[in-house]
Amino acid sequence: MLHGPEDLRIERVPLPPLGPGDVLVAVDAVGVCGSDMHYFADGRNGGNVLKRPTVLGHEASGVVTAAGPAQSTRLPVGTRVAIEPAIGCGDCPTCRSGRYNLCPAGTCLGSPPTGGTIAEHVVVPGRAVHRLPDEIGTELGALIEPLAVAVWAVRRAEVRFGHRVLVTGAGPIGILVAQVARAAGATDVVVTDVNDDRLAKASALGATATVNTATRQLGLPPMDRLVECSGHPGALRQGIQALGPGARATVVGQAPPTVDGLPLAYLQRWEIDLSTAFRYAHAFPAAIALAASGRVDLAGILTGRFPLDHTATALRAPGQDPRHLKVVIRPTT
Amino acid sequence: MLHGPEDLRIERVPLPPLGPGDVLVAVDAVGVCGSDMHYFADGRNGGNVLKRPTVLGHEASGVVTAAGPAQSTRLPVGTRVAIEPAIGCGDCPTCRSGRYNLCPAGTCLGSPPTGGTIAEHVVVPGRAVHRLPDEIGTELGALIEPLAVAVWAVRRAEVRFGHRVLVTGAGPIGILVAQVARAAGATDVVVTDVNDDRLAKASALGATATVNTATRQLGLPPMDRLVECSGHPGALRQGIQALGPGARATVVGQAPPTVDGLPLAYLQRWEIDLSTAFRYAHAFPAAIALAASGRVDLAGILTGRFPLDHTATALRAPGQDPRHLKVVIRPTT
Amino acid sequence: MLHGPEDLRIERVPLPPLGPGDVLVAVDAVGVCGSDMHYFADGRNGGNVLKRPTVLGHEASGVVTAAGPAQSTRLPVGTRVAIEPAIGCGDCPTCRSGRYNLCPAGTCLGSPPTGGTIAEHVVVPGRAVHRLPDEIGTELGALIEPLAVAVWAVRRAEVRFGHRVLVTGAGPIGILVAQVARAAGATDVVVTDVNDDRLAKASALGATATVNTATRQLGLPPMDRLVECSGHPGALRQGIQALGPGARATVVGQAPPTVDGLPLAYLQRWEIDLSTAFRYAHAFPAAIALAASGRVDLAGILTGRFPLDHTATALRAPGQDPRHLKVVIRPTT
Amino acid sequence: MLHGPEDLRIERVPLPPLGPGDVLVAVDAVGVCGSDMHYFADGRNGGNVLKRPTVLGHEASGVVTAAGPAQSTRLPVGTRVAIEPAIGCGDCPTCRSGRYNLCPAGTCLGSPPTGGTIAEHVVVPGRAVHRLPDEIGTELGALIEPLAVAVWAVRRAEVRFGHRVLVTGAGPIGILVAQVARAAGATDVVVTDVNDDRLAKASALGATATVNTATRQLGLPPMDRLVECSGHPGALRQGIQALGPGARATVVGQAPPTVDGLPLAYLQRWEIDLSTAFRYAHAFPAAIALAASGRVDLAGILTGRFPLDHTATALRAPGQDPRHLKVVIRPTT
Repeated sequence: MLHGPEDLRIERVPLPPLGPGDVLVAVDAVGVCGSDMHYFADGRNGGNVLKRPTVLGHEASGVVTAAGPAQSTRLPVGTRVAIEPAIGCGDCPTCRSGRYNLCPAGTCLGSPPTGGTIAEHVVVPGRAVHRLPDEIGTELGALIEPLAVAVWAVRRAEVRFGHRVLVTGAGPIGILVAQVARAAGATDVVVTDVNDDRLAKASALGATATVNTATRQLGLPPMDRLVECSGHPGALRQGIQALGPGARATVVGQAPPTVDGLPLAYLQRWEIDLSTAFRYAHAFPAAIALAASGRVDLAGILTGRFPLDHTATALRAPGQDPRHLKVVIRPTT
Repeated sequence: MLHGPEDLRIERVPLPPLGPGDVLVAVDAVGVCGSDMHYFADGRNGGNVLKRPTVLGHEASGVVTAAGPAQSTRLPVGTRVAIEPAIGCGDCPTCRSGRYNLCPAGTCLGSPPTGGTIAEHVVVPGRAVHRLPDEIGTELGALIEPLAVAVWAVRRAEVRFGHRVLVTGAGPIGILVAQVARAAGATDVVVTDVNDDRLAKASALGATATVNTATRQLGLPPMDRLVECSGHPGALRQGIQALGPGARATVVGQAPPTVDGLPLAYLQRWEIDLSTAFRYAHAFPAAIALAASGRVDLAGILTGRFPLDHTATALRAPGQDPRHLKVVIRPTT
Repeated sequence: MLHGPEDLRIERVPLPPLGPGDVLVAVDAVGVCGSDMHYFADGRNGGNVLKRPTVLGHEASGVVTAAGPAQSTRLPVGTRVAIEPAIGCGDCPTCRSGRYNLCPAGTCLGSPPTGGTIAEHVVVPGRAVHRLPDEIGTELGALIEPLAVAVWAVRRAEVRFGHRVLVTGAGPIGILVAQVARAAGATDVVVTDVNDDRLAKASALGATATVNTATRQLGLPPMDRLVECSGHPGALRQGIQALGPGARATVVGQAPPTVDGLPLAYLQRWEIDLSTAFRYAHAFPAAIALAASGRVDLAGILTGRFPLDHTATALRAPGQDPRHLKVVIRPTT
Repeated sequence: MLHGPEDLRIERVPLPPLGPGDVLVAVDAVGVCGSDMHYFADGRNGGNVLKRPTVLGHEASGVVTAAGPAQSTRLPVGTRVAIEPAIGCGDCPTCRSGRYNLCPAGTCLGSPPTGGTIAEHVVVPGRAVHRLPDEIGTELGALIEPLAVAVWAVRRAEVRFGHRVLVTGAGPIGILVAQVARAAGATDVVVTDVNDDRLAKASALGATATVNTATRQLGLPPMDRLVECSGHPGALRQGIQALGPGARATVVGQAPPTVDGLPLAYLQRWEIDLSTAFRYAHAFPAAIALAASGRVDLAGILTGRFPLDHTATALRAPGQDPRHLKVVIRPTT
């Protein structure tokens, strides 16, 4: 339970009642995301400010321990699951058109004031819960959420087989995007970062080339797609100018409120489209299928695990050591 | 023939030879475009600088007076035509994929160093020439080119029937975009500008509402599409923030090299795509069909005509009086 | 209440309870559709067989007379509305992806065993209810449903401005499709039928040309789109062969279980896509906007009105006189 | 040189002059396609009838031995190349829109009366010639053409990562389609045929499951895509009914002029689109990239090679032994 910056307390909280369409999940693992780290360090993430104590965490897996009557057939007790934390209202035109990630009334577990999953148990609506197949261990199931981010990013980027794709940023999302882009048939996937350890990891997990932009020029033939995963406006500016006629740039990394110096005339001369990705819609099934079939390697980005009472340490770890890609908290083990 | 800023001379220039696939056109009318005005005033337009004397003009209509053997059946002498000035190489992957407007080796009549159409006669390749039907007078045929810009803009904007469309800028392109958006089924077309005369014209020609942004807030329900036709970064910034979830913004007005203050987080939160339009591809047939069927009113934006020896006056006219939308030069009448 | 073929009885039936998300609507008008006529005449429509007494009718408008607490703000008592009869479960992957019309568990009012709207009052979920603006009278509001069919058909047909569109069948759907295709910017809309009265109506309401295929050859230049609204395989076969390279054919008329003689080699040589339309998704808002703005003329296809106790007469009328396009039953007037 | 059914003669034929944009290619290998076999056996293929002696063959690789001045820089003597045999006029609206495979005036090498590539040398336009990278041997370069068919089929089928794809027909095209679908991210690729040897090959080269439809029911969960590669209407009918809501069926195998029994009501109930693929457009670069990166195994489908003077034997081989997938003729080795 986060009370304010750096003020994290383990508390016993009553669970909400289990509705007929809900399931109760014993949480096995929760991945730590940059947004969790921002809330913990600063009490805010972008424009969203922590106003009252909230449980963090939204990348979660676990085991069903109780299910409402509408869910007990599909999700019997004992089912191993990944949790999709972003939930639309289901009824507005945006939700009904299929883009529930953009629902004006949507919520996301662990995004204050909505409580999260760094807890021993959570109650979630059944449609937010996806069964894990045998090929995916429960702990790695927590990484289905960031993989779904990458799946959606690659969809929004409209990567097609034969494409040359530039991925800026070799954090966990960038490396997952590189893997999904490969799975989608990209023949060249170039990953950039300023950290050689991360680039080495990207190479090991599917990038066909890497560039440390702190020390080298990009110097690429015209690329078909850019997927910006670093959150740095400079990477976006530079990446756009590596694109060729009719290409497409997609921003996945958390964008700053505004960017300066966007090369609009270049975008116009070559009719390059700029798109963005916000969370995901309909991406968990494909994420699970990619991980289960071995086309994406989740274990390769898991670099640390912490028990529940070391949550604060876990929330600091990636910031202290850039070799950390993804750490998980294990509430019930 | 433009020799430098404000240095325009009428000269007798030898015509190039008529190739087997070419036609010779006696020019009837040439519209004056903002880019012509920039070359005339400053000797440059954006990044393109006049280096040697060049004939300006790229919005042209006329009558075929000679045709190479490969064209004489389709375009016999006497055929009234509109000229498509942007020409791709036809052989590169970009051209072959259908996006000849983005051809790295492409040229455009009247874009230095390529000569233009403010002349009594021009030789052009047959595929750059489109027959005018009886319903379109030859003089108005010169306005098919800006209408093709608007057609392509509306295509790039992916306007669909039932959409609410915001058009920023009530110059000739903005007003034509508003008309084409209506023809494409937009049920609301809101046009903004800072000049009330232009907004009155927009209302008369198809806008369902107008807003003078110098004096009023936009105050609109979430729009589905933005087509930016003013060239002002402020209009783009403001227009984007009038868009709703999953909307699309398209920049048609000549973009500055870079823009500051682009609201990237807003684009991301609502997954709004930013696209651009550069000239046009395959747009002349639809432009001609829209004008011929009366769904677009070209006569309504024609505000002045000048003989060839008043070309300099014509090139200054729209800058001196904002009530001018489109003026034409009539080289052979 | 239909008990069997030609066995229609007016009965007093208890209304279901009004749920928190429901509204109670006093029905003003119900359009008669071909499927209603099939159920009435034969006790079945295609593969769906009447098994127990059911209320028919699914094209309905009315006035809200009570609203559950979740709807009373958006739909206060007195609101004039059109009813969207096809309802998805809202929770399956198909619904969540936005294609609720294809929901395997979906139901449709008036499609047995689901009860319909030829009644004085109906209880419907709030999301099935669309507010009518002042420009659309309540009686004509019953025709929003067939207009939504046409809207969805034109969307599935991917009609774009400048297209040449062939519509086979000049019944109410064909004539509405022709109007919507015009609204979507089609420059040529050719309507075919075997009845000259219907073709005259099509001409009066927006077709740019008509062909009586009983007496004349089609003889058209290659068309861009075919929208098949007659339900006759021969019209589909003939219409496909009027299409040009890269065109698209869309089947809206109720298809027979199988068709023979489909010209597959022709489809392949020209890469013509064959698509179909089933009911509609997200089409009511655009249908209402098109009718409200006057771009579609609903009054022009309304050819008869009957009180509730003449329902059987109304269900026979279009079959007996091909000049009837759309008749409505008025339960509460 | 084919003079009539089963009448094949080796003759010395003068080469056409080498135009400025042409290249002369010494042919290394030519794959035998079903259409070649039809011309050889029957003097016709579908509706196209051999009228005068013609050289067959359109799946060819070789080495540049002379280049016109416009090509000599890009394609110097000694360059190893694959030949794209289908050539559009380059100037009609269909070509200019990017769909040159549908050009009404298009020709294809080896499709009478246009001469083919079973010859020691051929003269072809430079834009029909694609450089082979080091990773692809010249002999296997002849199989880039059928791989391009598969690439285009998968594009037309709009296969996306995570899809479940059904491929009917385990001939060379079916097996290449299965491989490309895998490369495009399909997580399940089920291949059907009536020959167990071919199905075993499909399994070895990338199918995730196979079904011998002569002996077993399909019995699949709803599939997302069907790619029909057998040319049998029964496979199309059966395959369509294995598809789920909103799916897409694509016909690649040479279609008969008409098909009976198409399940149109099923297509309509689930809004399944039926598309077709004809040759390819812009597919050679992706085909070469997929083969060069090892994502598609061309060697695995090459089952025989014959010298030029055994051409007749080569043209009979696949018909005599269904274990043959692809045989090549080697004119210059």
